[in-house]
Amino acid sequence: MKKTEFPEKKVGEMGNTVGEFRKKLKIADIKGGPDEGLNRVGQTVVVMGWVRTLRVQSSVTFLEVNDGSSLSNMQCVMNSDAEGYDQVESGLIATGASIWVQGTLVASQGSKQKVELKVEKVVVVGKSDPSYPIQKKRVSREFLRTKAHLRPRTNTFGAVARVRNALAYATHKFFQENGFVWISSPIITASDCEGAGEQFCVTTLIPSSREAADSPVDAIPNTKNGLIDWSQDFFGKPAFLTVSGQLNAETYATALSDVYTFGPTFRAENSNTSRHLAEFWMIEPELAFADLDDDMACATAYLQYVVRHVLDNCKEDMEFFNTWIEKGVIDRLNVRAQFDVAEKDFVQLTYTDAIGLLLKAKKKFEFPVKWGCDLQSEHERYITEEAFKGCPEIKAFYMRQNDDGKTVAAMDMLVPRVGELIGGSQREERLDYLENRLDELKLSKESYWWYLDLRRYGSVPHAGFGLGFERLVQFATGIENIRDAIPFPRAPGSAEF
Amino acid sequence: MKKTEFPEKKVGEMGNTVGEFRKKLKIADIKGGPDEGLNRVGQTVVVMGWVRTLRVQSSVTFLEVNDGSSLSNMQCVMNSDAEGYDQVESGLIATGASIWVQGTLVASQGSKQKVELKVEKVVVVGKSDPSYPIQKKRVSREFLRTKAHLRPRTNTFGAVARVRNALAYATHKFFQENGFVWISSPIITASDCEGAGEQFCVTTLIPSSREAADSPVDAIPNTKNGLIDWSQDFFGKPAFLTVSGQLNAETYATALSDVYTFGPTFRAENSNTSRHLAEFWMIEPELAFADLDDDMACATAYLQYVVRHVLDNCKEDMEFFNTWIEKGVIDRLNVRAQFDVAEKDFVQLTYTDAIGLLLKAKKKFEFPVKWGCDLQSEHERYITEEAFKGCPEIKAFYMRQNDDGKTVAAMDMLVPRVGELIGGSQREERLDYLENRLDELKLSKESYWWYLDLRRYGSVPHAGFGLGFERLVQFATGIENIRDAIPFPRAPGSAEF
Repeated sequence: MKKTEFPEKKVGEMGNTVGEFRKKLKIADIKGGPDEGLNRVGQTVVVMGWVRTLRVQSSVTFLEVNDGSSLSNMQCVMNSDAEGYDQVESGLIATGASIWVQGTLVASQGSKQKVELKVEKVVVVGKSDPSYPIQKKRVSREFLRTKAHLRPRTNTFGAVARVRNALAYATHKFFQENGFVWISSPIITASDCEGAGEQFCVTTLIPSSREAADSPVDAIPNTKNGLIDWSQDFFGKPAFLTVSGQLNAETYATALSDVYTFGPTFRAENSNTSRHLAEFWMIEPELAFADLDDDMACATAYLQYVVRHVLDNCKEDMEFFNTWIEKGVIDRLNVRAQFDVAEKDFVQLTYTDAIGLLLKAKKKFEFPVKWGCDLQSEHERYITEEAFKGCPEIKAFYMRQNDDGKTVAAMDMLVPRVGELIGGSQREERLDYLENRLDELKLSKESYWWYLDLRRYGSVPHAGFGLGFERLVQFATGIENIRDAIPFPRAPGSAEF
Repeated sequence: MKKTEFPEKKVGEMGNTVGEFRKKLKIADIKGGPDEGLNRVGQTVVVMGWVRTLRVQSSVTFLEVNDGSSLSNMQCVMNSDAEGYDQVESGLIATGASIWVQGTLVASQGSKQKVELKVEKVVVVGKSDPSYPIQKKRVSREFLRTKAHLRPRTNTFGAVARVRNALAYATHKFFQENGFVWISSPIITASDCEGAGEQFCVTTLIPSSREAADSPVDAIPNTKNGLIDWSQDFFGKPAFLTVSGQLNAETYATALSDVYTFGPTFRAENSNTSRHLAEFWMIEPELAFADLDDDMACATAYLQYVVRHVLDNCKEDMEFFNTWIEKGVIDRLNVRAQFDVAEKDFVQLTYTDAIGLLLKAKKKFEFPVKWGCDLQSEHERYITEEAFKGCPEIKAFYMRQNDDGKTVAAMDMLVPRVGELIGGSQREERLDYLENRLDELKLSKESYWWYLDLRRYGSVPHAGFGLGFERLVQFATGIENIRDAIPFPRAPGSAEF
């Protein structure tokens, strides 16, 4: 590998203003303005990034350089008299190599960009081995999942990463601007929120990674009855990865009024589908002194806000998705973001009405429909895609019982392509009702002592919802498989990277 | 429990503007403006919150109500002719109860607030059982750790939650404003970043929570050799909780240029100290085309930014910490936030110089000092508190080797009270050097294949750091024990709530 030094030893310099510690320009800084870089024509600029393509013509060489700050490359035009041109001839400058290019910004002759870089000097920073798996030719998304460490260098996954980032930041902005406090709910927990979910066990009874592969079962500490001796485990009892931060968020909502979590949650379900992950990020707001109407209003306003943010801030990436991933995704999101049609856009449907709709449907379902059944994906899809949107789900213990004694104050928000995006409910704030529900479901009141305490001391009506962040990414980008909506997906048999 | 209905069934109403979906005013909205509420004098307002204290005098009753939106309570003044006054007499209105109060905002006679609420009507929403453990009398922070579900209702923990939230949001703002992309690094991983860290095992070989306590050891699947049969586990091999997202962040930095993680990380160390948690949040920025100087400049600018943000946005909470938790904390942070003294403020010290300083110290250390030793807490404390700030640490495999062949391009940022707040390094971007290091440390090159690929295809100089978020909370608030800096701390023997 050729040792190359940067022309300047120090790439960045400490700025004088907090928040501007680096003076380095990125391609998005150069080309991202309203005139797409024309204001900088004539300036000498430096670009650092990775070579996407190289076209050598008789008199001139075109290099497309990308630094990940935007979908757009910087087109670099080089004559044979440019300093470092020998690296083109020797093959060092090739797809995948990282380079440092200095040149003059000029108006471009091409139709694809307003400006391009007339190269004065180029330095290969790191060459690319010819085995580089992501060449210009199109590669499948299945193949790229096996190269999760390199796939962000493609247009699709670069754009997904930027839109995912924008959705995350918009999430924080929305809640912060509305007075919610971000809470980190615990990841490791000895309690089981849903009272049923399939959970991963977290333990130190099995030795750390290097020895784990060769661990004998009988080295696991056991009691004289042959049971696992949990007293010797790290937490002194069985512990698990959380399936939801909701119960913990409730403790803070009943102190700080409005809070939200945004963190990873886990399901050990053996579902190898395009809609499930074993590890995914959830957003769970919890509102005190609030009922189901407030909850739905919050979910609606939230979704409009983040969609609007992405449309305003990720124009180039969204046009890419609109062209290559899902035709019409921008129109679909635009309808969602129009706040003046908000009330029309979000049709609310009771559970009973949803069942009625499904019973009247001409369609034959795999799972038969009757009142009381849990809605399956096929039912949800029918309602959102062939009928319309909004309906509740089957009762978890914490959902507030309605006066009819049969239904609970819950809602689901179903959206096209994804199905259930948001599930929420008003929580049972009445101590006696909640205790009865725990008894009915044979859940231990002792293990929920702290959750019950919230109803014992200054209980308030409160409500919240959970939103699977990767499904939001799918919804906003049109990406079909949820494993392409998170950098390093975890699923049965798959914890690589 | 008395059944009370809200005077209005719907607490909130859908607003017309995205981002203003609720019209409910919180105490911070009423009292948080520059004139501390005087602009609203004469208005009828509703407050919903929890009773902190109740003083019944002969002619008038004072209620201090807090809704968690600020440290300040709303002082509510009630005569016996107010609607609902009977609830004072019957004892329903008591410390810990939740109430709905309507009244007229008037200028306050008291010196502690500019405005107070002249009560017209009060409704108890949820009474408080007399066993409420958080009464007015001061309770210890040790006791409150056993009541982690109720402690956010205290002044101290409400303030910690709000400052923690402000630090988190400032973190996102800083990186977003500087063009960094937030990356979610995986929580469950089959690789071990540090090559050594003590990790938690994640498994489904032990059944889910309800049955775990009674699981026999011999129900764990084993091979014919008596080893744990990992092929039957969820991921088909041993999997662990991450100790750092750095390696994963590097994959995205070498595609998108500048990225950061902000997520939970785990250490299964049996350390029952005031400085360690088994589960903590980390911020790990990674900068491409950057060296150690850029890294230090980024860490410096970041810390100044978030400290300034908290001083500007959490004035009341910071005054509380300054008075009750650490006298002088505001001055200490102000020095840190002055960007015009930035270069003077952060003294940089090489490892060799740090050792020199310690060798010259008059102090006797428990762990003897010599060149090559890892710095212990007592050494770090000496340097920051008795000498000054900044120094590097002992070599992890990914740290870039300096030309002296002895040291690596690493840095630690040490701060008073906390010790090591930030640890960072320039990463080894040279394939041959990195492979040699893996060999030296007897780490398997095969399991790092994807990490090595980053050096094979367009490698670039890059650098980053890790910051333990709870230590930042300690640094900013003066809170002594790290278990009080996170809502639900996890430590050996402790995974409650």
